[in-house]
Amino acid sequence: MTALPTGLRRLRAQHGDPAARSLRNTWDAPVVHRDLAASPVPHLSAAGIAAWGTDPARHSAEQAAAAAVQDELIDQFLGASAYLFAVPMYNLTMPSVFKAWLDQVIVKGRSFGLPDGPPASGRPALVVSARGGGCGPGTPNHGKDFVVPALETILHDLLGLEVTSFTPELTMAPVVPALAHLVPIHKASLTDAHQQARRRAEKFRDQIAV
Amino acid sequence: MTALPTGLRRLRAQHGDPAARSLRNTWDAPVVHRDLAASPVPHLSAAGIAAWGTDPARHSAEQAAAAAVQDELIDQFLGASAYLFAVPMYNLTMPSVFKAWLDQVIVKGRSFGLPDGPPASGRPALVVSARGGGCGPGTPNHGKDFVVPALETILHDLLGLEVTSFTPELTMAPVVPALAHLVPIHKASLTDAHQQARRRAEKFRDQIAV
Repeated sequence: MTALPTGLRRLRAQHGDPAARSLRNTWDAPVVHRDLAASPVPHLSAAGIAAWGTDPARHSAEQAAAAAVQDELIDQFLGASAYLFAVPMYNLTMPSVFKAWLDQVIVKGRSFGLPDGPPASGRPALVVSARGGGCGPGTPNHGKDFVVPALETILHDLLGLEVTSFTPELTMAPVVPALAHLVPIHKASLTDAHQQARRRAEKFRDQIAV
Repeated sequence: MTALPTGLRRLRAQHGDPAARSLRNTWDAPVVHRDLAASPVPHLSAAGIAAWGTDPARHSAEQAAAAAVQDELIDQFLGASAYLFAVPMYNLTMPSVFKAWLDQVIVKGRSFGLPDGPPASGRPALVVSARGGGCGPGTPNHGKDFVVPALETILHDLLGLEVTSFTPELTMAPVVPALAHLVPIHKASLTDAHQQARRRAEKFRDQIAV
């Protein structure tokens, strides 16, 4: 089973999903798909934080509602054995809705901070992070990718996942005249993303079958 | 005038605000305070993105509502002459509600991407980013601060602000027994944050008076 939180519709429809689809087409096990654009996760609230340290029997109505949101997301997260995260870059970082998902799921004593390590420890995860521009060498935003390094650290250090990432980039090149000369780099990055996605799906299958 | 988007209540109440208050106590010009914990900003939606490229006269009801959210936030942002951002670290990155604020405010042709540069270009901004742990040398999360480098880049490169940051850290040390030995580092970091905040307020005043 794979949980698939996705970014917002614009990049998802245009760019994020094609490479993700290559993985899913190669993948024949059951998939749970969570579309955060269609069903946004609320921001972690003061009630949601207060709920962590409070006996559920003493939760206020607001805390109980906030805890129910966390419980549902954590159960879905822990119920999967591999993960595909399609997280486009928005203003150099992850979309707020994906950060909200992380903040709801990362709860001490549930998904991390347990004596035996995180319950999802060692499970494979793939991050596909499409971006309209480019952060590779020779591009204007070189060194300014604040999505992938952050996600790799959070998903591994806090949730215990074994993360691989790739970044279909310059997805705006075919539609923005000033970026037209970068179309070949965009196409190469997309081809590479599809190839990697298919390879990764096969590897996931082997890892999970073991 | 200073716009003050703040993080969530927990860190704001305990840690974020004291240093921010040192700045505000030294500051005697009018202040506009936006509390994102009390009044969260919605995630940027597909309608909000579609609204950017659509003639307002042709906005759907959903697009018009999304554009009104952006307009109010952008007007408040552009109406200030200096900024104090209190953005605590949540799971190594910024809280989703602050990312939502950024994604609503960063609109091409309004706050950036204009022929003469961003309208807020050169205005001073201070980022106060409290965190329960530490990311400095010798701490377990050394090198894993994905708040300040991201914010400095976004606020400067996209919105044109001149950013200074400081990070009151280890705010959990006084309450978590395992971190008790780090209390002195926490206290030093807090003292430093207050001093810097007061100095920064005086500098802001000079810059704006020019």
